[in-house]
Amino acid sequence: MLFFRNNHNIKSYILSLHLEPHGYIYYDSSMKIGVYGLGRFGYFWSELLAGKFEVFAYNRSADKPCPENVKRCSRDELLNCDVIYLCVSISSFEKVLKSLSPDIKPDTLIVDTCSVKTYPASVMKSILQKDVSYLATHPMFGPDSGKNGVEGLPLVFCSGRCDKSVQQEWISSFQEFGLNVIEMSAEQHDREAAFTQGITHFVGRVLGELNLQSSEIGTVGYRSLLEIIEQTCNDPMQLFYDLQHYNPFNHDMRMQLMQSVDNTMHKFTDIDREESDL
Amino acid sequence: MLFFRNNHNIKSYILSLHLEPHGYIYYDSSMKIGVYGLGRFGYFWSELLAGKFEVFAYNRSADKPCPENVKRCSRDELLNCDVIYLCVSISSFEKVLKSLSPDIKPDTLIVDTCSVKTYPASVMKSILQKDVSYLATHPMFGPDSGKNGVEGLPLVFCSGRCDKSVQQEWISSFQEFGLNVIEMSAEQHDREAAFTQGITHFVGRVLGELNLQSSEIGTVGYRSLLEIIEQTCNDPMQLFYDLQHYNPFNHDMRMQLMQSVDNTMHKFTDIDREESDL
Repeated sequence: MLFFRNNHNIKSYILSLHLEPHGYIYYDSSMKIGVYGLGRFGYFWSELLAGKFEVFAYNRSADKPCPENVKRCSRDELLNCDVIYLCVSISSFEKVLKSLSPDIKPDTLIVDTCSVKTYPASVMKSILQKDVSYLATHPMFGPDSGKNGVEGLPLVFCSGRCDKSVQQEWISSFQEFGLNVIEMSAEQHDREAAFTQGITHFVGRVLGELNLQSSEIGTVGYRSLLEIIEQTCNDPMQLFYDLQHYNPFNHDMRMQLMQSVDNTMHKFTDIDREESDL
Repeated sequence: MLFFRNNHNIKSYILSLHLEPHGYIYYDSSMKIGVYGLGRFGYFWSELLAGKFEVFAYNRSADKPCPENVKRCSRDELLNCDVIYLCVSISSFEKVLKSLSPDIKPDTLIVDTCSVKTYPASVMKSILQKDVSYLATHPMFGPDSGKNGVEGLPLVFCSGRCDKSVQQEWISSFQEFGLNVIEMSAEQHDREAAFTQGITHFVGRVLGELNLQSSEIGTVGYRSLLEIIEQTCNDPMQLFYDLQHYNPFNHDMRMQLMQSVDNTMHKFTDIDREESDL
């Protein structure tokens, strides 16, 4: 069973999708989805996908737990899947893809789930063989924000090297999970993410160093400030570094932020100087 | 009527408070409350107090609107009030008090409403005649946060030079408005406010310079970040300067914040340098 759909091609993959009379799509139950990486997100993502597909998950070390509805598999079994979702850290993405690439079968679809998009898209384009398809996605949630279900949560979908109809099927499939699918280019994602996600994580880490406490005299604004720390400092530090480093627009964001900090700080240096001159 | 309770003393003021059988306090309806300053907060505060007291409001210029239930008055009429709330900017507080002080009648109670506390408390202590009482308060709300009522909103109450029983009456009175009265020393307020209100306003102004927009791919954390801007940048710039300048603990907060920004920024300078060395 596990090897049943080995070496199928894109055409058979598309044929495995059927449209019911009212437009509801279901997938050939024999289509196998692989997930590389059982970290916090990989665990969550594979468990979600297993609600609809037959899902196999591979992790380099065997110590990570695997969801009950997902089959833990070997590297070879992963490479026999029709679609492989890569759920690895941004900084290990290139290394992982390079190690997999020689063994990826033609017509396999590789999908990344990184929180930056131009970098993994360009890595996939340069490393993957021409007969391997790829898509770039950013599921903007995880086990914390999705703990009560993923209904309405955003997933950014960047078109890649992949048959249009297959892309459309995946979009529909994500929508059936209740996700809010947002289509944009990888560059558009990163440009916008620098001044949303990037700045939030940066500010969160800055504030996280200050050991701020909840306070009886905390205002609504202060509670939002604590919320930022909570939303960013629980993520692994590696994610923070990777977000800043692999989004090409984050450097500019940091420079603008630093300039604004300097401008604002300078106002008080001036006032303090005027005071001491009096 | 307006001059009826002229020159009454603290004792008569206390006697004007009556305890009903079930402990409910009501005030002598002839007790006159004055409000100096009809800015956004003075307007809001005088209107609130007028729900319980006879309130007179004075503003240096006549162009500011006055709530319907409040009587606009002259400077002399204001000085005939039993209690005078000062609703002026922190930076004009000393000047206003110096100009009023020679004409403040003995046994008048002066109450400040500034967003910092050690500074106005020390100004009142040094400027006011010994026979004039004072209290320092920080109503931590305004027309925006209190637009649907003040129930549960915090008011910081710092004991001043004032008869204990009068202080207790005011605390009870604020509680009857539904306010959450928090008693603490002026120093404790400022120390805590530096790392709640002070840092929030600083971060809000830094972010406010960056022209951030709401975004389809904005996360929960990013929405909190936009919330901080909204909660701080709508206030007058003068309040921001005053908060930073007149809270003696805000300088230290800014230094710690700057250090944390530098530490966090430095991490990426190091990474960028390592990259370019490769």
